[in-house]
Formats: sequence, C-alpha cells, structure tokens
Amino acid sequence: MKLSKEIADWIKKQVEKANKKGVLFGLSGGVDSAVVALLSKLALGDNVLGLILPCESSPEDIDCALEFAKKFKIRTEEIALDGIFDEFIKIHPEANRMAKANLKPRLRMVTLYYFANSLDYLVAGTGNKSELAVGYYTKYGDGGVDILPLGGLLKTEVKDLAKELGIPDEIICKAPSAGLWEGQTDEGEMGITYEELDKTIVAIEKNNTRSIDKEALSKVKKMIANSAHKRVKIPIFSK
Amino acid sequence: MKLSKEIADWIKKQVEKANKKGVLFGLSGGVDSAVVALLSKLALGDNVLGLILPCESSPEDIDCALEFAKKFKIRTEEIALDGIFDEFIKIHPEANRMAKANLKPRLRMVTLYYFANSLDYLVAGTGNKSELAVGYYTKYGDGGVDILPLGGLLKTEVKDLAKELGIPDEIICKAPSAGLWEGQTDEGEMGITYEELDKTIVAIEKNNTRSIDKEALSKVKKMIANSAHKRVKIPIFSK
Repeated sequence: MKLSKEIADWIKKQVEKANKKGVLFGLSGGVDSAVVALLSKLALGDNVLGLILPCESSPEDIDCALEFAKKFKIRTEEIALDGIFDEFIKIHPEANRMAKANLKPRLRMVTLYYFANSLDYLVAGTGNKSELAVGYYTKYGDGGVDILPLGGLLKTEVKDLAKELGIPDEIICKAPSAGLWEGQTDEGEMGITYEELDKTIVAIEKNNTRSIDKEALSKVKKMIANSAHKRVKIPIFSK
Repeated sequence: MKLSKEIADWIKKQVEKANKKGVLFGLSGGVDSAVVALLSKLALGDNVLGLILPCESSPEDIDCALEFAKKFKIRTEEIALDGIFDEFIKIHPEANRMAKANLKPRLRMVTLYYFANSLDYLVAGTGNKSELAVGYYTKYGDGGVDILPLGGLLKTEVKDLAKELGIPDEIICKAPSAGLWEGQTDEGEMGITYEELDKTIVAIEKNNTRSIDKEALSKVKKMIANSAHKRVKIPIFSK
C-alpha cells in the first residue's frame, strides 16, 4: 500500500478509537503541516480543520498557509495570537528569549485544544521523526498533541511524501522554521542540515556511525541526551 | 526515614539531575499545592516560587493561598489570568463548557513554564495518585509538568501528610476543586468521594475488589479506561 494511504488509514483508526468526530492541526505554511492536512483530508474528508495561528509571524507564512488551504480545499480558521502573546509578555517582560519563544507554540497548543474540545476533534501533531528524536519542539507546545501521523518519518521523507502528494514547491522549499523569532530557521538553530541530521539519526539507530562526521555525531547525541526529559514519562515519586 | 524527608530528597535529586536552579508550582489554596510547596521548601530552601494564578477564582481561594504562603514564608507571585482567559473566549464564544473549563489549567501551565523557562526552574505538579489513576486532570494543563512529587500518594495520604507538616485545617478542609467553574468540587464532578475513590483504586491495584461497592467499581473502571490516552505515550504512526 502507498505510504500516504497507510497513514490516512492510521489517522482514521485513531479518530474512531478515540470516538472523536475529526482532526484539527496548526497550519503554518511549512511542509509538515501541509502533509498532515492532506493526509487528514484523505482520511476524513471534510471533518478536518486547519488553524492558522499567527503570532509575530511573517505575512509570507500566513499567505503560504492560506494559498495552500485554498488550493487543496482545506477548511481553515485564522486566529491572530499576537494580542494574547503581548499580554503574557507584559506579565513578566524581563523573561529571557527562550521563555518568550516557547510561549508561542504553547499558546498555539491552548488554541488548538480550545477548538478540539469544543468540536470533539483530535489534535494531530505535525512533528516528524527527526524533530522528535532530538527534542526539537516545545514541551507542551507543539509537543502537546493527541496523535503524531508523521512521527515515524524523517524530515527528508516528509519532503518526499509532500512531492508525491503534489504539494507545490513554494511550500516545500521554504526554509523550515519553528517561527520562534524573526529569521529563525531550524537548521540554523540546530547547527546542522536536516539531511545530515537524518543520516546521523539513522546511523545511531543502526548502531553504525563509522561514516558519520564526528562533530555532527557528537552534536546529535548531545541533543538526544538533553531532550530525554521530553520523551520519558513524567517522573513520579513512589514510596 | 519520614515520608516528607523522602519526598524532599527526591525533589532535590530531580532538580540536580535536570541541572536546574529550583522549582515552581501553582498555589491554589488547596491541600495538594500546599504540601508541594512545603516539601519543595524543605528540599531547596529559598529556590522555590509559588505562582498564584486566579482565573475566575473565588477571592477566598486567593486569600487562602496568600495566607498559607505568608505563614510558611513561601515566595509568591500573583498573576491574574482573567483578562487573557476572556481574550480566548472572544476567539470562539460558542465553545462548550468543557472547552472553556480546560482553558484555565492550560493557561496556568503556559504561565508556569513562562516563569520556569525564564528562571531555569522545574515545574512541580501537584497531582496525586488518585487524580492520576482516573485521569482527573487536564491534558497539557495541570497534567503538563516536569515532576510529580505527590504522584505516588492517594488524596487521603496527601491529607495525612499535610497534617504531619502542620498545615492548618482551614486549608486542609476546603472542598477540593479544580476550579473549573463556580461551585465545582472534585467529588461532585466525579460523583464519588475521595475516600471511596482511594479505597477502590487500591482494591483494583491489589486485584481484590470483592468488598467494593459495585457502582463505585464500575464508575472508577470507566474513568480509568476513558483517560488511558492521558497516560500513554502519544501514538505515532510507524512504517
């Protein structure tokens, strides 16, 4: 079976198992959320909703998300979170850059669940295997979802799937960014290209890292170790 | 070793392991957060912070939290979230009661992490074993924390520990409430007293439920089953 059909079937099964009416997701204009949108539509027809949630976002990203949704007939709602974000900043203006950056995906999570609870939908995450492996996401932010349809696919595999699904290059080629601050790109912040990251993750998985650049290997191993707390169960004191 | 000392040592170890500077937590005026506050102080001295986060809260609860903090010299910050809550309601006023109710603990989580990221602290949850077992908490709301110091203690055991720690009855005796709406109490919403809930959880654990009321048993089993998605890892599609 084609991968896209397999994932769509899986999404449908998850929704049925949870006894929900559909799925929703944040639509950023990037490749991951575009793929999640199309797979969800394949699985559930009209019972999908893409939320466009600008928060200090560039107008280009919003346009990109809107154009994609129009082209593929994805139902959307656009809700600007800038005002609420500013209210939070006012609470504690002296917070550091990371605290402010993490606010954005967390406010998006709150918004996604506000709609999901109301519509009785599941929240589909857009995280891929590359990001999950190294913890490149915000705990209880974009990491706070019900299902992860792309969680088994490396970023490079998500891009291939996007091509297969006919998602136009304008979206695929955009430099991936978590949108944490202006000019931020995933690859810039992690200090490694997705191509190299994916190669390194696979090599670590296969326990065969001889061909991997030493610096990349040490960087990826460090990211994996530092983000372990995001993947394990919450530590509980037990008597 | 005394239970309070054991938990305090565990908290200290968690903070050291995560390479953080302290812990913070939401201070509601209820017994769970009061116990977490005192154990954290026992563990870390002044490197603790209690955030009082009213959101459509009763003035009595806020006073209770403030009085407790004053009596036990817990550093606090009070931040009213009512304005931000109202902004969210405006986004989608037709949302159902549950969606609106769940917003509150989620906004508290966002606030706790905004401070935690900035201060380099861990977020200590106040959830106990009774609530965790039946999923009586909001996913990525009060369930969104770094450590659960009371997660191994039934609600009735938390109350005993509170007495041992000298926490005054005014706080202990308050009817436990998640504060989701006015007049809400945990026991009223769950339809079972904590005493009966705890007895039933222990009986299920020991696989010896003969002495348990049939209706209570069926209710608790249902709550456990319905909340399984909150305790398992996020489902990931895998090839």
